[in-house]
Amino acid sequence: MTRRRKIYEGKAKILYEGPEPGTLIQYFKDDATAFNAQKKGTISGKGVINNRVSEHVFTRLSHIGIPTHFIRRLNMREQLIRQVEIVPIEVIVRNVAAGTLSKRLGIEEGTPLPHTLLEYCYKDDSLGDPLVAEEHIACFGWASQEEMQDISSMAIRINDFMCGMFAAIGIRLIDFKLEFGRLFDGDFSRIILADEISPDGCRLWDIETGEKLDKDRFRRDLGGEAEAYQEVARRLGLMPDESEGAVLDMVSHRLRKGK
Amino acid sequence: MTRRRKIYEGKAKILYEGPEPGTLIQYFKDDATAFNAQKKGTISGKGVINNRVSEHVFTRLSHIGIPTHFIRRLNMREQLIRQVEIVPIEVIVRNVAAGTLSKRLGIEEGTPLPHTLLEYCYKDDSLGDPLVAEEHIACFGWASQEEMQDISSMAIRINDFMCGMFAAIGIRLIDFKLEFGRLFDGDFSRIILADEISPDGCRLWDIETGEKLDKDRFRRDLGGEAEAYQEVARRLGLMPDESEGAVLDMVSHRLRKGK
Ligand SMILES: Nc1ncnc2c1ncn2[C@@H]1O[C@H](COP(=O)(O)OP(=O)(O)OP(=O)(O)O)[C@@H](O)[C@H]1O
Ligand SMILES: Nc1ncnc2c1ncn2[C@@H]1O[C@H](COP(=O)(O)OP(=O)(O)OP(=O)(O)O)[C@@H](O)[C@H]1O
Ligand SMILES: [Mg+2]
Ligand SMILES: [Mg+2]
Repeated sequence: MTRRRKIYEGKAKILYEGPEPGTLIQYFKDDATAFNAQKKGTISGKGVINNRVSEHVFTRLSHIGIPTHFIRRLNMREQLIRQVEIVPIEVIVRNVAAGTLSKRLGIEEGTPLPHTLLEYCYKDDSLGDPLVAEEHIACFGWASQEEMQDISSMAIRINDFMCGMFAAIGIRLIDFKLEFGRLFDGDFSRIILADEISPDGCRLWDIETGEKLDKDRFRRDLGGEAEAYQEVARRLGLMPDESEGAVLDMVSHRLRKGK
Repeated sequence: MTRRRKIYEGKAKILYEGPEPGTLIQYFKDDATAFNAQKKGTISGKGVINNRVSEHVFTRLSHIGIPTHFIRRLNMREQLIRQVEIVPIEVIVRNVAAGTLSKRLGIEEGTPLPHTLLEYCYKDDSLGDPLVAEEHIACFGWASQEEMQDISSMAIRINDFMCGMFAAIGIRLIDFKLEFGRLFDGDFSRIILADEISPDGCRLWDIETGEKLDKDRFRRDLGGEAEAYQEVARRLGLMPDESEGAVLDMVSHRLRKGK
């Protein structure tokens, strides 16, 4: 097995050329960043968990008719995905006020929102992913109105599904981030869900205790981030045996390196 | 004539109780602020000019069917207006990139926008009037969808009118800010244009030279702000004689103070 060509290295993942045209391999790192990469660190085992959680969520979303880039998981840290042209808009779905929303609008963290709120940020690290409105998206042609219609209606359905999924395992879904992409078929393209859904891009609070089971543990130096990610995976019924996970991770690393 | 009760003192204007219920007197100060009042100063004669310019623009807008709060000018610094419940949203209409838009989205100042862009900011000084999307406005009930429909369609018409008006006098309308309010009639209310339209809330560039004829002269310490405001009023055919203006201003001050 030869090393595949690296297409892009991001803050949390690496994209490699896939085995067939139109496919990519998404490799999940343990690297963690926050506040637009001003804070950096690693969360041990995070990549393994995010790969597994994202597989789980994307698979179930496809069962309710949400088209996604996910094809199949290859090993502990890698999954095969469909290559898309990423829409340069991060979609933030919010059920409860937290994070930047609380700060910008002066709403106390934990305040349930009157109804689900969709926010759009322009994906540009050098600008700090600024909040934008649909007017900006239309004005600069970042996505068409039809695409935004597809994106917003999918985001709402994904939220309903994920609220149910997490509620069932004692977790409150506060907010989360989605990325979508254009899948081309000749001259035509359609919107599918891309990137990942994992504790990296979600705020997940224990329903009973309010304990944070997400990247805010890292952002806010609360400690126990690796355990929090594991707890989410465990409650989802994934990774029943940690030692097994560790062994498989080691093996997959060796395989990837062609040893 | 007795001194009227002060209702509200803002950064640039004072509202007094009006002579009849449902009316207010809007007094224009020379005070200037920028960057959410971090920078403070005065622009000599600004209040007189803004009162006059706002009267001029609001009167002409009413002629094309835009309902406004303006009733009549009382003197050099005061105008009689209809009291409304201000919608807590500042509407920014942009034709050319400048100011915060340029900064937030990394678009060079002076770049014409592909089409007119409406931005909404939540009116809250303590939060720095943060940009919001229609989703936030709906979520927190700051305005109804019907009201936002009226506001956005009026904003677009106002922009078209003002682009024409300023183009006719050699001025390019880069962007400007609007405030709207609810005028109650029993249990019903309708949206009308409120606050002011003046060089305080507009970016106005000379079509030929690009010279700034607006509050950016103050914000950016360019000097000549009083002259720039005068130039706008002069080109609009207002205040043909400055000395006359000064005399009237003095008289109106005395009258207001009941002397
Ligand atoms: N199916 C896909 N096809 C092409 N690109 C994808 C796909 N799914 C995700 N991506 C992109 O791959 C990258 C994943 O890497 P990572 O999440 O580490 O990036 P990042 O550091 O968050 O940076 P950024 O998202 O700002 O580019 C992202 O740029 C993401 O938009
Ligand atoms: N017709 C009206 N009825 C009631 N209030 C009005 C009307 N027109 C304008 N206002 C309000 O009167 C105030 C005008 O004062 P000024 O413009 O100095 O305020 P400001 O310092 O800009 O502060 P802010 O606009 O944040 O309250 C504003 O609060 C404006 O919203
Ligand atoms: Mg990412
Ligand atoms: Mg004001």
